[in-house]
Amino acid sequence: MRLATIRTAAGLRAVRIDEAAGRAVETGDADVRALLEHADWAERAATAAGPVHDLAGLDLAPVVPSPEKIICVGQNYRDHILEMGNTPPTHPTLFAKYPPALVGARDDIVLPPESQAVDWEVELAIVIGEPVRRAADEAAVLDAVAGYTVLNDVSMRDYQYRTKQFLQGKTWERSTPVGPWLVTKDELPSPDGSGLAVSTVLDGETMQDSNTDQLVFGVVDLVRYISTIVTLAPGDLIATGTPGGVGHARKPPRYLTDGTTVVTAIAGIGELRNTCRAEQP
Amino acid sequence: MRLATIRTAAGLRAVRIDEAAGRAVETGDADVRALLEHADWAERAATAAGPVHDLAGLDLAPVVPSPEKIICVGQNYRDHILEMGNTPPTHPTLFAKYPPALVGARDDIVLPPESQAVDWEVELAIVIGEPVRRAADEAAVLDAVAGYTVLNDVSMRDYQYRTKQFLQGKTWERSTPVGPWLVTKDELPSPDGSGLAVSTVLDGETMQDSNTDQLVFGVVDLVRYISTIVTLAPGDLIATGTPGGVGHARKPPRYLTDGTTVVTAIAGIGELRNTCRAEQP
Repeated sequence: MRLATIRTAAGLRAVRIDEAAGRAVETGDADVRALLEHADWAERAATAAGPVHDLAGLDLAPVVPSPEKIICVGQNYRDHILEMGNTPPTHPTLFAKYPPALVGARDDIVLPPESQAVDWEVELAIVIGEPVRRAADEAAVLDAVAGYTVLNDVSMRDYQYRTKQFLQGKTWERSTPVGPWLVTKDELPSPDGSGLAVSTVLDGETMQDSNTDQLVFGVVDLVRYISTIVTLAPGDLIATGTPGGVGHARKPPRYLTDGTTVVTAIAGIGELRNTCRAEQP
Repeated sequence: MRLATIRTAAGLRAVRIDEAAGRAVETGDADVRALLEHADWAERAATAAGPVHDLAGLDLAPVVPSPEKIICVGQNYRDHILEMGNTPPTHPTLFAKYPPALVGARDDIVLPPESQAVDWEVELAIVIGEPVRRAADEAAVLDAVAGYTVLNDVSMRDYQYRTKQFLQGKTWERSTPVGPWLVTKDELPSPDGSGLAVSTVLDGETMQDSNTDQLVFGVVDLVRYISTIVTLAPGDLIATGTPGGVGHARKPPRYLTDGTTVVTAIAGIGELRNTCRAEQP
């Protein structure tokens, strides 16, 4: 099942995507987080029969526009760790974004005049479906995971490295596409999100090309680790880290510029297609 | 004016604290964030005449239980920078907490079995009252600041230093008292929160004793800097950093233990009084 949040004349709406029928059906919820907060969300979404929209004209919002938590993982692909000159970590590296950073799957990525080093990072993102604390094992993790989406962890490298804490380079307003939809875990080759090709293409040129099999800490590891610290809640997003091929590690470095189209894709989930737009100072 | 969020039999409620009359008056909002989301929040709160509660029996929730953003500032007191062996920074160090970390002004601080190094950090916290992006000057900052509260940025040092990113040591469930109330900026000696004594006392023993005049980046600097990156919204909390005297920097290090009472106070605002309780594994 594929679930999205769309913008309508009446406001945001959660929808079930019926790809074969070329339509999206409203579930009766304001967004995917509100849908997931129903304990019976899967049945509710599967049986929803609300207002219908053509897929062609959908205006996609961030799949979860206002998560309680957006948790990002750093240094989590073997190839990216090597490219950045680091050694594989013993514990996950975690940092945050705030909800105003998020944009939809076809929205512009805003390039603020304050940064001269805006970079791309394709990531598999976990979407939490059930509250979970101290998940004991793989079964407990998979009970809590609704499914997966794509997140482009756009990063202002100049701000990211101004201090030792990444946050200020990671949470710029309207920088971070997420979507196009949540694909429930039963639709993927493995419910733990392993074995999925991930890629970034800039104006037709491939920049990142890897596979979630390269994750140092996989989905089960991450949900167990993070839920030790804090309860994960429906709609929470965990961006699992990015593979090699980011612009900052290239020689010479390469960054996003006005007019560039960035396509970040994960096989079996879908793609984000965003144009970069310089914000007028 | 003093504004709080309290727990009642009917759920959370925002109240105006009338100290002289010994009572709290409901404003008609679910919490202080919902109150601040009214553009006329100050008048709405001043003229509120809802159900009344005795001050003596108030059950204080976190002053803002679910902020969109909890932004914390590191290395921001001259004395704490020296104690940790660091040099004064050129830019603010920013990191995050998530809302489930917050507890009320009289609640227990939960000591999880996973950490053996739970530490205290008294902080002046800014409460945002009006949306603001790229605040141009002091006047724009002060227009956006509703007032101030006290936040004890409880930190699991073992987790904080497992990786280079602080988040996992900063956002443990039910670790972080905030309150007891929001004091509007007009009630303080200076509307920018400068010149306030800040302290932490553990079971009667003073551990931190400083003044917000020691801030490297003051309230105006911080709101200008952070709002460059992202829009600050009503109810957002900015914890401005902690002075010297934390347990981790002591020789030998000292941490919070089961039964300890921690009082974190800021002159002109109020105090948090929390007992530490070991969570049963």
